[in-house]
Amino acid sequence: MEQITSNQNTKVKLYQKLKKKRERDKQGLMILEGYHLIEEAFQNNLTIEYLFVLDVARVDQALIEASQATYEINMKVAETLAGTVTPQGIFAIVQKPTFEISTAKQVLILDRVQDPGNVGTLIRTADAAGLDMVIVSRGTADVFSDKVLRASQGSVFHIPVVVEEDVVHFVQNFNGPVYGTAIENAVSYHKIDKKQTSFALILGNEGEGMTKALLDATTQNVTIPIYGRAESLNVAIAAGILMFHLKG
Amino acid sequence: MEQITSNQNTKVKLYQKLKKKRERDKQGLMILEGYHLIEEAFQNNLTIEYLFVLDVARVDQALIEASQATYEINMKVAETLAGTVTPQGIFAIVQKPTFEISTAKQVLILDRVQDPGNVGTLIRTADAAGLDMVIVSRGTADVFSDKVLRASQGSVFHIPVVVEEDVVHFVQNFNGPVYGTAIENAVSYHKIDKKQTSFALILGNEGEGMTKALLDATTQNVTIPIYGRAESLNVAIAAGILMFHLKG
Repeated sequence: MEQITSNQNTKVKLYQKLKKKRERDKQGLMILEGYHLIEEAFQNNLTIEYLFVLDVARVDQALIEASQATYEINMKVAETLAGTVTPQGIFAIVQKPTFEISTAKQVLILDRVQDPGNVGTLIRTADAAGLDMVIVSRGTADVFSDKVLRASQGSVFHIPVVVEEDVVHFVQNFNGPVYGTAIENAVSYHKIDKKQTSFALILGNEGEGMTKALLDATTQNVTIPIYGRAESLNVAIAAGILMFHLKG
Repeated sequence: MEQITSNQNTKVKLYQKLKKKRERDKQGLMILEGYHLIEEAFQNNLTIEYLFVLDVARVDQALIEASQATYEINMKVAETLAGTVTPQGIFAIVQKPTFEISTAKQVLILDRVQDPGNVGTLIRTADAAGLDMVIVSRGTADVFSDKVLRASQGSVFHIPVVVEEDVVHFVQNFNGPVYGTAIENAVSYHKIDKKQTSFALILGNEGEGMTKALLDATTQNVTIPIYGRAESLNVAIAAGILMFHLKG
């Protein structure tokens, strides 16, 4: 197995470049650190371009065989690659998956949700609720960033997550009710049918809510009644309550 | 108004000591930073022992009058007191509230929930759902720590939050069904009645779940079905779905 001992190695430099969203978008690649995430990517048949391992004996042989190329690295290189203080000793450069969005029947749409922890938890919750797909607008936190990947706990690899340029167009052509989460002409979610076979649910930006064009394209706005004195619910909790209501 | 210009001032030293949970517990006091949290404490009639302000002109006169003592501080002192990189310029030492727990009818119980963000969000969600009280066991993240206060977005001051030594005793004497969240003999939450007037819901530690003694004291365990491939739901999202189901 080829060894990499220098931070000047071109693969190491590529990994470093991919820490920037712009590079990930341009190259269609993402970077992963840690056994759990890389194992998830492998089990979900993503293409692993490069695998970097500190201790080869710890790594599943099937994972090494599935990778296009595997390199043994030293601690110096591991520390350079690591996004965390204590590197787990395994890193990968992986192709972003692509999906056909026209077949999705139960969809969560994120409209410029900013907080990576929220985005990750929303994807995890959509996965738990058994939805078909998560569609994120431009302006939503990068799905393939470190924080989103961690908060999603692997769900990014379980459920198709698609960055869509024209969410309004998708919504306008969606075959089923589209629920917005805004107070304008909203009804309580209790009035919305449970166990729907086809639906889209849109969650907006934490501060500003949904964009006007999307609001205009919804079938119905829904709200969750606040019985106490909190001003609002956390966006991921609101989404969890609504998705489990719609799945029923 | 008296001025404090030295970090050696005894009130400044007291504030610093109260950054430790042990001191907060011992003295029955908490520390607050920022206009929003202090305003919430004031509006909820908590006793403000000491108020420290950088720019007196920015502070509501009613708040100053309600405080037992107010001090004008300089930037050096503000930076010392601040837990955040950019101090908001207002700090307070406030008495922790005390509550009578025997009257609570709709209760969320946290059994050693560790993550401060989760604890804060759980309190915020219990507030939104209109519950009467949150009871936390010893071993749960400190309710009056900076991170919990922030994540709760003021809900710590809206709903009684009680640290209870003997949660098992409370549960055994509770007048209503007590729902645990564990898989042993659990039923889907869909089988549990909605709109209950009296109930307790217990959430356990993120990794280990509920303690055995509490499990033995529950009326019924409930689960939320996972329709997809996520291993679990975030604890605050699970609690949100269950609380809004029970409140219905």
